[in-house]
Amino acid sequence: MNDSTNSLPDHRLICTVDIVLLTLRAGQLQVMLLKRDREPFAGALALPGGYVHASEDQDCEDAAQRVLLNKAGLQSPYLEQLASFSGPARDPRGWSVSVAYMALVPAPEPALPGQHWLPVDRLPQLPFDHGRIVAAAAERVRNKSQYSSLPVHLCPEPFTLPQLHGIYETLLGEAINPVSFRRKMDELAILEPVPGAKRAEGPHRPAQLYRLKDEFRQTLRLVGRGLNA
Amino acid sequence: MNDSTNSLPDHRLICTVDIVLLTLRAGQLQVMLLKRDREPFAGALALPGGYVHASEDQDCEDAAQRVLLNKAGLQSPYLEQLASFSGPARDPRGWSVSVAYMALVPAPEPALPGQHWLPVDRLPQLPFDHGRIVAAAAERVRNKSQYSSLPVHLCPEPFTLPQLHGIYETLLGEAINPVSFRRKMDELAILEPVPGAKRAEGPHRPAQLYRLKDEFRQTLRLVGRGLNA
Repeated sequence: MNDSTNSLPDHRLICTVDIVLLTLRAGQLQVMLLKRDREPFAGALALPGGYVHASEDQDCEDAAQRVLLNKAGLQSPYLEQLASFSGPARDPRGWSVSVAYMALVPAPEPALPGQHWLPVDRLPQLPFDHGRIVAAAAERVRNKSQYSSLPVHLCPEPFTLPQLHGIYETLLGEAINPVSFRRKMDELAILEPVPGAKRAEGPHRPAQLYRLKDEFRQTLRLVGRGLNA
Repeated sequence: MNDSTNSLPDHRLICTVDIVLLTLRAGQLQVMLLKRDREPFAGALALPGGYVHASEDQDCEDAAQRVLLNKAGLQSPYLEQLASFSGPARDPRGWSVSVAYMALVPAPEPALPGQHWLPVDRLPQLPFDHGRIVAAAAERVRNKSQYSSLPVHLCPEPFTLPQLHGIYETLLGEAINPVSFRRKMDELAILEPVPGAKRAEGPHRPAQLYRLKDEFRQTLRLVGRGLNA
């Protein structure tokens, strides 16, 4: 389309990854933003992200893991590909494709310095199309909560079943029958009791503590019929 | 990483789209493959795909629509983004990102010349990572069939409810209670009766014919608790 020797082929495009790191804190789904240290949008709060490096990354997920480690100090949290966002206008540097990922973590207490955790439902205007990317991630988490083990990745370990139950209820925004919830968790078979560990909560007798079985740290399990069925 | 003036920046990558066009025929989920007319893998059956053109496409979905129209003669079938596939080895031309889409159509009868429809569960070895992309699409369709209006896009219009019921059962690989199925279809509110149109099927009295309401041609609706709940 352009015969200048400096021009790039039309199909060689800017490729980036962006990561929507989510947690649950104060009864809210929150996303982690960082202050950008360079142009474009230097100084603005934005999703952690960066270029895919062909010389270094084995695939886009590998790039996302690298960005998470370098920019958020996180090693292998639960990570899944969300979607790709593309077009001529989303990045002022040119036509770009961003492969977006979402990562889930239990609320870090206290938040690490430089990390800004904001509720996904009350964000300021974000640079690029990051507002749209966060909205897609929030919708994905809420939809999947009905049918899968995904919310377990937001719960600090070890946890009691009532605590996990509360996390599912917060994400779904509705009450879940506790008996049905315990049955579904049994069905999923992803949790193991921590031997000899119990926690007292309020006036009840101490509740057994659980943790995620190691083999499910990167894998979701689906329930057959929804948690509320 | 390389100071030759001809080299591309490390983050300028080959970007393509690939489309998994699916239908249901002979009780099987089938995918459309085309014979490649150029290298790499000239002559092999592969998914329809092509470069994203920064000068022409508004985003990757736009590129996918263009490829579907040019290579399969299809205008706006149901289309959704599947996932991105990336890495140094999937395409012999270099480190690449392919944004994969899946499109659903009722079985074209007869198949158009040059289009090869093969069952997703019995494919030969495909070039690139197309086998992996098809497997991801088949899994997506089957998972979503339990909870959404997605299978409607595989049904030739107009259709009777028993016919649509059969399509859901084929995709889910299990029996669905017909009364519960009708209730869920009512809940989704995506179908409209074709006025005065009925079709006789076997010894039963003629059944009402339905079609998808126009506003749902590109949108999925979710059922609250799964079709079998």
